[in-house]
Amino acid sequence: MPNIVTKFERARPEDVAALAPFGSATVHEAQGRLGALDSRLKPIDRTMRLCGPAFTVLGAPRDNLMLQLAIHYAQAGDVIVMSAGEYEEAGCFGDVLGNACVAKGIAGVITDTGVRDTQALIELGLPVFSLNVCIKGTVKETLGRTGCDIVIGGELVRPGDVLCGDADGLVVVRREDAARVARLSQEREDIEADLIEKYKAGRTVIDLCGLEPVLEAKGLTTDL
Amino acid sequence: MPNIVTKFERARPEDVAALAPFGSATVHEAQGRLGALDSRLKPIDRTMRLCGPAFTVLGAPRDNLMLQLAIHYAQAGDVIVMSAGEYEEAGCFGDVLGNACVAKGIAGVITDTGVRDTQALIELGLPVFSLNVCIKGTVKETLGRTGCDIVIGGELVRPGDVLCGDADGLVVVRREDAARVARLSQEREDIEADLIEKYKAGRTVIDLCGLEPVLEAKGLTTDL
Amino acid sequence: MPNIVTKFERARPEDVAALAPFGSATVHEAQGRLGALDSRLKPIDRTMRLCGPAFTVLGAPRDNLMLQLAIHYAQAGDVIVMSAGEYEEAGCFGDVLGNACVAKGIAGVITDTGVRDTQALIELGLPVFSLNVCIKGTVKETLGRTGCDIVIGGELVRPGDVLCGDADGLVVVRREDAARVARLSQEREDIEADLIEKYKAGRTVIDLCGLEPVLEAKGLTTDL
Amino acid sequence: MPNIVTKFERARPEDVAALAPFGSATVHEAQGRLGALDSRLKPIDRTMRLCGPAFTVLGAPRDNLMLQLAIHYAQAGDVIVMSAGEYEEAGCFGDVLGNACVAKGIAGVITDTGVRDTQALIELGLPVFSLNVCIKGTVKETLGRTGCDIVIGGELVRPGDVLCGDADGLVVVRREDAARVARLSQEREDIEADLIEKYKAGRTVIDLCGLEPVLEAKGLTTDL
Amino acid sequence: MPNIVTKFERARPEDVAALAPFGSATVHEAQGRLGALDSRLKPIDRTMRLCGPAFTVLGAPRDNLMLQLAIHYAQAGDVIVMSAGEYEEAGCFGDVLGNACVAKGIAGVITDTGVRDTQALIELGLPVFSLNVCIKGTVKETLGRTGCDIVIGGELVRPGDVLCGDADGLVVVRREDAARVARLSQEREDIEADLIEKYKAGRTVIDLCGLEPVLEAKGLTTDL
Amino acid sequence: MPNIVTKFERARPEDVAALAPFGSATVHEAQGRLGALDSRLKPIDRTMRLCGPAFTVLGAPRDNLMLQLAIHYAQAGDVIVMSAGEYEEAGCFGDVLGNACVAKGIAGVITDTGVRDTQALIELGLPVFSLNVCIKGTVKETLGRTGCDIVIGGELVRPGDVLCGDADGLVVVRREDAARVARLSQEREDIEADLIEKYKAGRTVIDLCGLEPVLEAKGLTTDL
Repeated sequence: MPNIVTKFERARPEDVAALAPFGSATVHEAQGRLGALDSRLKPIDRTMRLCGPAFTVLGAPRDNLMLQLAIHYAQAGDVIVMSAGEYEEAGCFGDVLGNACVAKGIAGVITDTGVRDTQALIELGLPVFSLNVCIKGTVKETLGRTGCDIVIGGELVRPGDVLCGDADGLVVVRREDAARVARLSQEREDIEADLIEKYKAGRTVIDLCGLEPVLEAKGLTTDL
Repeated sequence: MPNIVTKFERARPEDVAALAPFGSATVHEAQGRLGALDSRLKPIDRTMRLCGPAFTVLGAPRDNLMLQLAIHYAQAGDVIVMSAGEYEEAGCFGDVLGNACVAKGIAGVITDTGVRDTQALIELGLPVFSLNVCIKGTVKETLGRTGCDIVIGGELVRPGDVLCGDADGLVVVRREDAARVARLSQEREDIEADLIEKYKAGRTVIDLCGLEPVLEAKGLTTDL
Repeated sequence: MPNIVTKFERARPEDVAALAPFGSATVHEAQGRLGALDSRLKPIDRTMRLCGPAFTVLGAPRDNLMLQLAIHYAQAGDVIVMSAGEYEEAGCFGDVLGNACVAKGIAGVITDTGVRDTQALIELGLPVFSLNVCIKGTVKETLGRTGCDIVIGGELVRPGDVLCGDADGLVVVRREDAARVARLSQEREDIEADLIEKYKAGRTVIDLCGLEPVLEAKGLTTDL
Repeated sequence: MPNIVTKFERARPEDVAALAPFGSATVHEAQGRLGALDSRLKPIDRTMRLCGPAFTVLGAPRDNLMLQLAIHYAQAGDVIVMSAGEYEEAGCFGDVLGNACVAKGIAGVITDTGVRDTQALIELGLPVFSLNVCIKGTVKETLGRTGCDIVIGGELVRPGDVLCGDADGLVVVRREDAARVARLSQEREDIEADLIEKYKAGRTVIDLCGLEPVLEAKGLTTDL
Repeated sequence: MPNIVTKFERARPEDVAALAPFGSATVHEAQGRLGALDSRLKPIDRTMRLCGPAFTVLGAPRDNLMLQLAIHYAQAGDVIVMSAGEYEEAGCFGDVLGNACVAKGIAGVITDTGVRDTQALIELGLPVFSLNVCIKGTVKETLGRTGCDIVIGGELVRPGDVLCGDADGLVVVRREDAARVARLSQEREDIEADLIEKYKAGRTVIDLCGLEPVLEAKGLTTDL
Repeated sequence: MPNIVTKFERARPEDVAALAPFGSATVHEAQGRLGALDSRLKPIDRTMRLCGPAFTVLGAPRDNLMLQLAIHYAQAGDVIVMSAGEYEEAGCFGDVLGNACVAKGIAGVITDTGVRDTQALIELGLPVFSLNVCIKGTVKETLGRTGCDIVIGGELVRPGDVLCGDADGLVVVRREDAARVARLSQEREDIEADLIEKYKAGRTVIDLCGLEPVLEAKGLTTDL
């Protein structure tokens, strides 16, 4: 297999667009509590959100050669997702490459290592999710791969799968499930909006969650 | 003892009100450097503050059944404090339950596990302190207890004790000590305000802290 | 050697001024990827920046006696840098000492332990970098030293060396290298600004980074 | 309350003796999955076991004054249990104090900080459980307390409660529950011995654990 | 797809046997530095070794229902490999289930959570690799899956892939690569044995590793 | 300065020999509680001990080029001490290089990264201290330095300084202080042996440590 694979099936744009409005927690729940990446992967600024098909990258710790190549070969709208061994003490991405991403229309960058130049990246408006913020430089030595299955944050991500992220964290949706999960996310949101209205109207948790039979079965006792 | 205990002595409202204006560090020092919870427990937004009597909850990791029950049984003004095994990779609390809390007048939520929907919680204005932010879902299986002594953040918290929290962290005050600690906190604030004025007026640390005899006793030497 | 050494050579003010505009990542790269402190040392607010000669302090964990003495003996413009054993669960510095620092014109405080009263410190405008935010009090018992070589964040810091810090982290520059590193930082910024312009103009990563011969030598393969 | 409390009710010697043969995991399960201390607290050698009433100590991080006092005031058969803030980078206990313990018949030492001289301690045969092994010295400055309720490893330990420890970790048993828990531990051991015999005889997990109705209720599906 | 999948292709027994003699580091290098699991996964005793096809299990944190089912459905010679969310503070496996494994001829157990009854497991001779040793009990609530692709220790493991483990850690070999990797491992061992003989005969590192041209190209300088 | 510096002053052999019998904790205390390296640096087997002058190495994370060069250029009796950025997930040293060390008479290896082939290294009898045991391979790309000042485990180590290590950890002694520290270590051992005899004879802690006046000054109270 070549190092650089660029031809893979991406989630359909309309499915990505359908998923984009939902929070990462909602999407995770809607698809059956699957796909949540390790919670240590967070945006460098809490207002950042992203949603797009993964351009996957398998890199090496403290080495950003493959990240540079990914920026070269990814398409507009892609989210670059690099697995590089969870090494915290390196900054593999900063404002110069950030500008290269924006120029190409990259939808965001996710890595399980560190990034730097965070103030410039925030001003640039590019969504960046990482394990750490660190100024330490990297080398450009190790050939890895793109467009392959990777493991990041304890989850398998395939090229073209959708990554959704916000201040709460990241979730991966299989490309073929994107439309279905968007629909389920909307259903969940509707139910939750209804629940919130009912709480505001004074309904109680045990009542709304239908806990009474459950609690009886478990033998709950109270001092009331 | 029943699972759900709701009848316990809470710190008196006037004592809670007296403690509320002080920062957590001040309260911790004022009561003799006691009661500070583990510093990893922090608000999800640095502007959040809370002060109120603890409605204690003993839950299980990755299980929010008891948190739901706590919201049902707690009173307006209570701070729900759940100990659940310091499990970081779960979000046991989000915006739906957050709305339920606000509807009931809950004064805040503290847990040694994760929470999610943080943007919505921040907009809701409910003070939430946790060990982590994580989107991963929880189960509703394990009966625990409420209104019992719990250990959270390495400290014992009894039902009705006062929890004070801000961006610096959390401190617990025994319910019977609340009035006394509020008084001592005011005294400490007065002393500190006076010190700050004197520093601004050019007085020095060794002078103001009365360090000279201490340093002489310890045998301090300088190159001056 | 006396406990308190105050007479040491500081980096020249004009060299400090020359370094001040650059980000910590730029300075780190410009001096050959050296001098980056452990990335866990971060400012308590992301807008904080500092640049100044180190007034070094060797303290003990959970003990702020030497920090008080450092405030007493440091000069206006100094950055107080205290190594105290990387103890996270203590707040050795808060708003009273923060006011003392501001009154003396101290340029910033760096410590590998915790600080507290962060809201007041932020309002005060004093740059503070630490390993943690924690309310737990400290003792004033152990004589240490000032104006000596210390290790902090895995790096050697000598009295008078320059510390540069921002939201990305901290870097130390040897006092005798400050002028040269400022010059190299400017050169790096110029190159980066030029690169950014070229990315905006549509140039690609492989082209701009001159990667083609490198990739050929390494035997890169693609699916194109 | 005085600093040093020595007069408290200890678990009855016959109850301690009844608990002593059981592993810590068995005792934890037998009392309803309660009382397990943080798993980071482990013996310095995997053959070490202890069982005895707690002589509780509230110390300060990096300070072994109270541990020295505890050795002075504890009784033969006591397990000294010191809570000192989970500070890893200090060795508060070594072979000299180890010999003092053995001379007095102390049954073991537990601390949430570090110890040192481990080879000599192992040869001495004194069971020692700690958070870490570290050579760094401590001070003797801070008065704390003995014979008081403490929190260690996330659990409340009262003076006189029983601590049971082995290579798997530590569990606390309330002094008034010791006899009952010993009985339940024996019952659990008997059941487990019987299960082991049945497994050896070829019985299967689903059969022996009575999982069939549970799995049916949950809707388990298989490819068989 | 059913919860329990038992029918999958396992690596051929002769290939497993061919891999078994090699250390995990050798296998990892021989297949091109791939497949190493997170180094926190270690045997509970340093003499333990395992090699066998994976019977994969997707479980939930603090829940050992799926592990019980895996023991039921796995074959003699299988290595049970359970991914359960890297939760350290639970012991999901102990001596009773250990005896069930031995009775069935299971070749070993690997989990990214905790285990207990370690002394009994060591005496039993069953190789057990885990993230932690912890006495805390688990529930049996959550249906997961077996015989599916899982992520454990940051690596993808497919049912039937080979797991090799020793005191240094664990490595996964794709089932279809097992024969080839065994051959490459032997070649590497032969080369290493030859190198060791040459070192014993007085040859030097630079000479044996052919470093001279590399160092010249990099511009190495010495004080000799 | 050249990359490879081999000519530096080493501690005198007779001073190294004088230090060798003492435990690391004793040496650390004898020189005034200085020089202890981070407690995470431990031998791969608890019976390992080392004492010798440091052949310092500044390497890069996940890169063992400089370690190979160090083995080439170090002298018999040297302890190779490599600082490489505290990267845990790499094994930079194994049995082949271990044999090269033994062939040259190297006294031991210390690194703040991982090692592998631990069983073979233990059988070889070479003392190896590291941050981790990990099978993951390294590259050979980055030129660093030898014979220079390095920071490892939070301490400054100069070429020729003495490293003493055992199961408790590591301590560095300045080469010019070695004779004096050996003498002080002996004095401390004599005092401790005497104390141990007195404890065995029934003397108490408060008596032997002369704590009475201290405790009186601090206002100790008891229930006796």
